[in-house]
Amino acid sequence: MSSPTPDSPQPAWKQRAYQIIFESDTRAGRNFDIALLVAIVLSVVVVMLESVRSINAQYGSYLRAIEWVFTGMFLLEYLARLLVVRRPLTYAFSLLGIIDFLAIVPTLASLLMVGSRYLLVIRTLRLLRVFRIFKLGQFVGEGEFIVTALKASRFKILVFMSAVLTLVTVIGTLMYVVEGGQNGFSSIPKSIYWAIVTVTTVGYGDISPVTILGQTLASVLMIMGYAIIAVPTGIVSAQMAGAGNAAPPVSPYRQVVCHVCQAPDHKREAEYCWQCGEKL
Amino acid sequence: MSSPTPDSPQPAWKQRAYQIIFESDTRAGRNFDIALLVAIVLSVVVVMLESVRSINAQYGSYLRAIEWVFTGMFLLEYLARLLVVRRPLTYAFSLLGIIDFLAIVPTLASLLMVGSRYLLVIRTLRLLRVFRIFKLGQFVGEGEFIVTALKASRFKILVFMSAVLTLVTVIGTLMYVVEGGQNGFSSIPKSIYWAIVTVTTVGYGDISPVTILGQTLASVLMIMGYAIIAVPTGIVSAQMAGAGNAAPPVSPYRQVVCHVCQAPDHKREAEYCWQCGEKL
Amino acid sequence: MSSPTPDSPQPAWKQRAYQIIFESDTRAGRNFDIALLVAIVLSVVVVMLESVRSINAQYGSYLRAIEWVFTGMFLLEYLARLLVVRRPLTYAFSLLGIIDFLAIVPTLASLLMVGSRYLLVIRTLRLLRVFRIFKLGQFVGEGEFIVTALKASRFKILVFMSAVLTLVTVIGTLMYVVEGGQNGFSSIPKSIYWAIVTVTTVGYGDISPVTILGQTLASVLMIMGYAIIAVPTGIVSAQMAGAGNAAPPVSPYRQVVCHVCQAPDHKREAEYCWQCGEKL
Amino acid sequence: MSSPTPDSPQPAWKQRAYQIIFESDTRAGRNFDIALLVAIVLSVVVVMLESVRSINAQYGSYLRAIEWVFTGMFLLEYLARLLVVRRPLTYAFSLLGIIDFLAIVPTLASLLMVGSRYLLVIRTLRLLRVFRIFKLGQFVGEGEFIVTALKASRFKILVFMSAVLTLVTVIGTLMYVVEGGQNGFSSIPKSIYWAIVTVTTVGYGDISPVTILGQTLASVLMIMGYAIIAVPTGIVSAQMAGAGNAAPPVSPYRQVVCHVCQAPDHKREAEYCWQCGEKL
Repeated sequence: MSSPTPDSPQPAWKQRAYQIIFESDTRAGRNFDIALLVAIVLSVVVVMLESVRSINAQYGSYLRAIEWVFTGMFLLEYLARLLVVRRPLTYAFSLLGIIDFLAIVPTLASLLMVGSRYLLVIRTLRLLRVFRIFKLGQFVGEGEFIVTALKASRFKILVFMSAVLTLVTVIGTLMYVVEGGQNGFSSIPKSIYWAIVTVTTVGYGDISPVTILGQTLASVLMIMGYAIIAVPTGIVSAQMAGAGNAAPPVSPYRQVVCHVCQAPDHKREAEYCWQCGEKL
Repeated sequence: MSSPTPDSPQPAWKQRAYQIIFESDTRAGRNFDIALLVAIVLSVVVVMLESVRSINAQYGSYLRAIEWVFTGMFLLEYLARLLVVRRPLTYAFSLLGIIDFLAIVPTLASLLMVGSRYLLVIRTLRLLRVFRIFKLGQFVGEGEFIVTALKASRFKILVFMSAVLTLVTVIGTLMYVVEGGQNGFSSIPKSIYWAIVTVTTVGYGDISPVTILGQTLASVLMIMGYAIIAVPTGIVSAQMAGAGNAAPPVSPYRQVVCHVCQAPDHKREAEYCWQCGEKL
Repeated sequence: MSSPTPDSPQPAWKQRAYQIIFESDTRAGRNFDIALLVAIVLSVVVVMLESVRSINAQYGSYLRAIEWVFTGMFLLEYLARLLVVRRPLTYAFSLLGIIDFLAIVPTLASLLMVGSRYLLVIRTLRLLRVFRIFKLGQFVGEGEFIVTALKASRFKILVFMSAVLTLVTVIGTLMYVVEGGQNGFSSIPKSIYWAIVTVTTVGYGDISPVTILGQTLASVLMIMGYAIIAVPTGIVSAQMAGAGNAAPPVSPYRQVVCHVCQAPDHKREAEYCWQCGEKL
Repeated sequence: MSSPTPDSPQPAWKQRAYQIIFESDTRAGRNFDIALLVAIVLSVVVVMLESVRSINAQYGSYLRAIEWVFTGMFLLEYLARLLVVRRPLTYAFSLLGIIDFLAIVPTLASLLMVGSRYLLVIRTLRLLRVFRIFKLGQFVGEGEFIVTALKASRFKILVFMSAVLTLVTVIGTLMYVVEGGQNGFSSIPKSIYWAIVTVTTVGYGDISPVTILGQTLASVLMIMGYAIIAVPTGIVSAQMAGAGNAAPPVSPYRQVVCHVCQAPDHKREAEYCWQCGEKL
């Protein structure tokens, strides 16, 4: 693999291929991104259908054939990325590079060992690449708005989560004691699971209190859940409302991520990624 | 069907009928709208009652008779609308026109073919016409406020929805693998259905994790649901708070929708609908 | 019953009794209010305990004795109110007066007819009097803040509710058709009940979709529920945030309700209630 | 135990030990706090694992051994705190001091009496000490922000809670009457429990209405729950948004709590705790 000095000009065909595969400013680049997106979603749908027993029994062989086609396509894409990128190793060991690699492995691995079912999950992780599409047009700012608000709230949310985890641990233990290890509250971890199901208002009902004392305690927890659920919502709302009111500051950074390693926050005047040195 | 030039005066009775049927500025027009509203709600109630087996067994024939009366009334209304409107075809192919037409069909169709039960749904779609009533007085601004806030947030909500869908797909697949295709997690689509039921805090409990690893994963998903549910609420709150704080700008458009094709946003000085040419 | 002219001075003992029973500015008045509050809560607790079979079997006679004591006390209180108030009839036919009266009737009525169980509910309505306590100190402004925000949002919430009701009707009908009247979706009203249970994220699980199409439709409804639940929260948040930012205007009304008929919004300079003529 | 005058200098080793055990400004102090935190979490995990029957059967003796080690460590820590603190009695009777003491007792008590299972809960209360870690760095302000917003909203939330409790009592009684003491609504307290489960949108489904009237009433309660859940969220959001907009006032108090008695809000110039007299 070649490792040119950062400023050496690349051959024209490589620059063109780079534009198509990694960027989405040109028409061809955008079309490539959208085609890739569709391929990813379809390949995940195939994985899903295969898991449905009745469909698998009837169309299993077709689905596996389609899967091989997709795996071939993703393999070609992966090799193309390695070829045209300026620093192949940086790409290969970046988060997206590893996901791209792992997306190909499961199908190949299924030849060698039977029952590598845990690799199924990695295939769906390919869906994370869907977010690349948000580089396109309108969505950059919107996605960034949400992420910024959540980032700015992260310490508040962390403090809040600690309080919730302490609460469910204490109440879960209390319920284990109160219900006496019966009615589904068979251990403290299980009681804590119940407390989480309750305080988040999910309420499966697979475990629910039966004794009067237990139902009273559960009622207190639910009513507390009211005040509790108001907190993260309040944090994010206030953050977003504040961001909306303030005049949007001219950021010293460009709203662009590195096409290779996905590093954000490049200076306006930057020409190369500060993390992997790839041309922006 | 007549097609006069837009400026040719209509006969007086037609103008009067138009005012009553399509507009709601006059006393008669408002009464017509309210009467229509009541008829729509009652006809939907009749459809509902018919679906209850015990009621159907006892009063089925009465209900079907009432339904024929309503169908007749709606047929007359539909014909009247076609007659008095300036451009009948525009109305007939507008969204409301099609709903008005489909609202009559099911009862008629039931004569020809038995078991056209899918047409039932169309009858309830008539309820969408209820929103016409909000043209009246106070409600215009309020409904518009909500719709504007949701519209302004649509890209943010779309980005958010994509993130949620990716999350439930990944977690759903993970749960399918973890619970080993048992305990209700019999396929990936079913596991994703479970993940949606959980992350939205609905929690039916028809499928719920049984293994310790599964319950732990579910707990993580529920706790994440906290931060997740805060996001759309925060988006809409911030949007609405921002809209409320800003001085209400004098809109260059009139808060009125075309009586025929429901096109909104007419210029203040407009006299005819920009979409269908009907007089405003 | 005496009916003095509004300005005629009342005997001193009557004024004193009025201060204690109807007002809460004096120490005695506040103590009376708190004692009454405790009595109301206790009497409701007695009613509750009586409904528990095991407790009723053992302590039923004691509970019924205590109930007679409370009924006696409330009867005395009711008569005292009638005696000291300036316009007894106005009080007797005000909302609180009727509740006070109905609070005594059920126990008396149980002598005459057996199984007047529907009267139980009226007894718990006495709890509404708890809100009188909020006249005390700090709480006036806070309660008013909430009520004002909800009042200001009432049209928006009404529009929103109509949209939700239309949605659950349409989706409920659709589910009835899709699930084919089975799996609990046995009639359209029942399917609408399911849709409400789902869209509000309550999710009992007594009815839940079984077919793949039904589960897909349910997933769409739940995901929509996200955007939907954000709307009322956003409305109230924005309203409250707006109210908090704005400089609190000096209200032309006094933050006081009539002690007799509970009419609010009296002018600052008012000395008599505008509704019942009682001295403020 | 020594009781020096507040100003008498302590021996150097005592000051050093105090810095490490009670403060977290120095490197050693911070490390001690983090080590203690890990020990607390681990000891709670051990208690949890012991409650799982299968794990207890296999590893019970090891777990009990580990517990004795932790108990020994906490005992040493407790004695060290008593030794180095300026006023040992003040610490011993402060909230944290009592929790520290109770954290040691259960294991010791298990020697004397069998089945002191209620003491289990106290052990998990040790988790409350986790919040000491938030004295470190970034978290002080964030935690304070949440607590301040909740404190400022406490009267509003109290009024709101009263309204909710009254509502669930009235609706619960109504449902008991409507469902006729059947279908799980076997007593008024149980019906109120159901109403709380419903209005908080938890929805276990262990009790759910069966009659048509009951399901209608439940639907009303759920729809009302929409407006209801918007209220606390709105309160907290508005409070937080308001706090964020306002310029952060220079507090006359230092953002520090007493290391011994946890009293907050010390004046900027204070050198001793206003509650227990310990040096800040």
